[in-house]
Amino acid sequence: MLTLHHLEYSQSFRILWLLEELGVEYELKKYDRDPQTRLAPDAYKSISPLGTAPVITDGDLVLAETSAIVDYILDQYPESTLRPDPSASNRSRHLFWFHASQGSLMPLMLMEAILNIALTRVPGIIRMVLKPVVQKIREGFTKPRTEAVLRLAEEHLSTADFFSGEQLGAADIVMSYPLEGARVRGYLGEATPRCNAWLERIHARPAFQQAKAKDGRNSMVLPLS
Amino acid sequence: MLTLHHLEYSQSFRILWLLEELGVEYELKKYDRDPQTRLAPDAYKSISPLGTAPVITDGDLVLAETSAIVDYILDQYPESTLRPDPSASNRSRHLFWFHASQGSLMPLMLMEAILNIALTRVPGIIRMVLKPVVQKIREGFTKPRTEAVLRLAEEHLSTADFFSGEQLGAADIVMSYPLEGARVRGYLGEATPRCNAWLERIHARPAFQQAKAKDGRNSMVLPLS
Repeated sequence: MLTLHHLEYSQSFRILWLLEELGVEYELKKYDRDPQTRLAPDAYKSISPLGTAPVITDGDLVLAETSAIVDYILDQYPESTLRPDPSASNRSRHLFWFHASQGSLMPLMLMEAILNIALTRVPGIIRMVLKPVVQKIREGFTKPRTEAVLRLAEEHLSTADFFSGEQLGAADIVMSYPLEGARVRGYLGEATPRCNAWLERIHARPAFQQAKAKDGRNSMVLPLS
Repeated sequence: MLTLHHLEYSQSFRILWLLEELGVEYELKKYDRDPQTRLAPDAYKSISPLGTAPVITDGDLVLAETSAIVDYILDQYPESTLRPDPSASNRSRHLFWFHASQGSLMPLMLMEAILNIALTRVPGIIRMVLKPVVQKIREGFTKPRTEAVLRLAEEHLSTADFFSGEQLGAADIVMSYPLEGARVRGYLGEATPRCNAWLERIHARPAFQQAKAKDGRNSMVLPLS
């Protein structure tokens, strides 16, 4: 039986939610972040090949990387509709959002997170110089690119309720984490009514609620300090 | 017939190489970067949904995002061995590297690139303050994480010649760009003999050479200025 090693407030929440959507048997091992550094504990890093969350173990296999784990799990449930077949009309829509999540939106959210952490860790005098530089990187790079992703999301969600199309799919599950990240960073609001509604829609799903109950946290993303 | 919109020195080189490996018919449209800004020209941005490279058009379909395009194209050639089936023994290895490329290595290379560009664009006095901060982000975040990916790559390439396994696969094609990026950023050397050999191995492939001839550039990544 597959074991999900779930790190609180991390990308592994999506695997927990996926498993609940599938309604399958699995073992769940939960790990807390180090209270000081907010990093994964050594017990987690020693399992995960890159020290990152999520990671699953399945017999001899140890597999990291969110989207790889999603594909690996869905390989085992070919009857699931979460990953449209190559012949499905929503295949290219699924492929785009499934890959754009980790390939385009996550790197932008990660870069903003790292720059903000850097700001909090430098002495006040250096922060005064660094802050406008970080602001310029945001204005010139991460913000316009994030807004471009969100505009396209609004457009696609205006034609069907989910990133995958009419039904929830793997693209929705992977998109949840960077969109929650975009929300805590102030990117969602009046200009993104359909993304806001999509977040409410996924939060209301029984499987999401079950995942949240097993997680025991109020949010899948680490609240901004 | 599918059209690849190829931007010089960009991630779209991988799609060009993929199409040459498949040996299929396609139309190639090439675009130069703006000589001043080094960004994609407006003609490119107007086609690509997020303004990014690569993008393909196929009838009414416009599809961006490297890995989405790779999956879309491979859907059309189910007899190709480039994407191992769910039942293949190298499936999880393929999935890991296929997704780790854009999900783990690319964001690290992107973050280093953006921080380095920021360094060149600030006045000298600010650069003096910014440089040690960028250095700290590199030492504390991007460098250890990049080295963790490279250590794992060395380990996997010691058991088989390609990221996908015994044969070249889609995982190798997507990994080529961030590994070329890692090379120009000084990450490859004595500690990475298998990655170095892998780069030589892919460069020697006839399909890679054909892609390079059609591209007309010496490198798929933008040389560091």
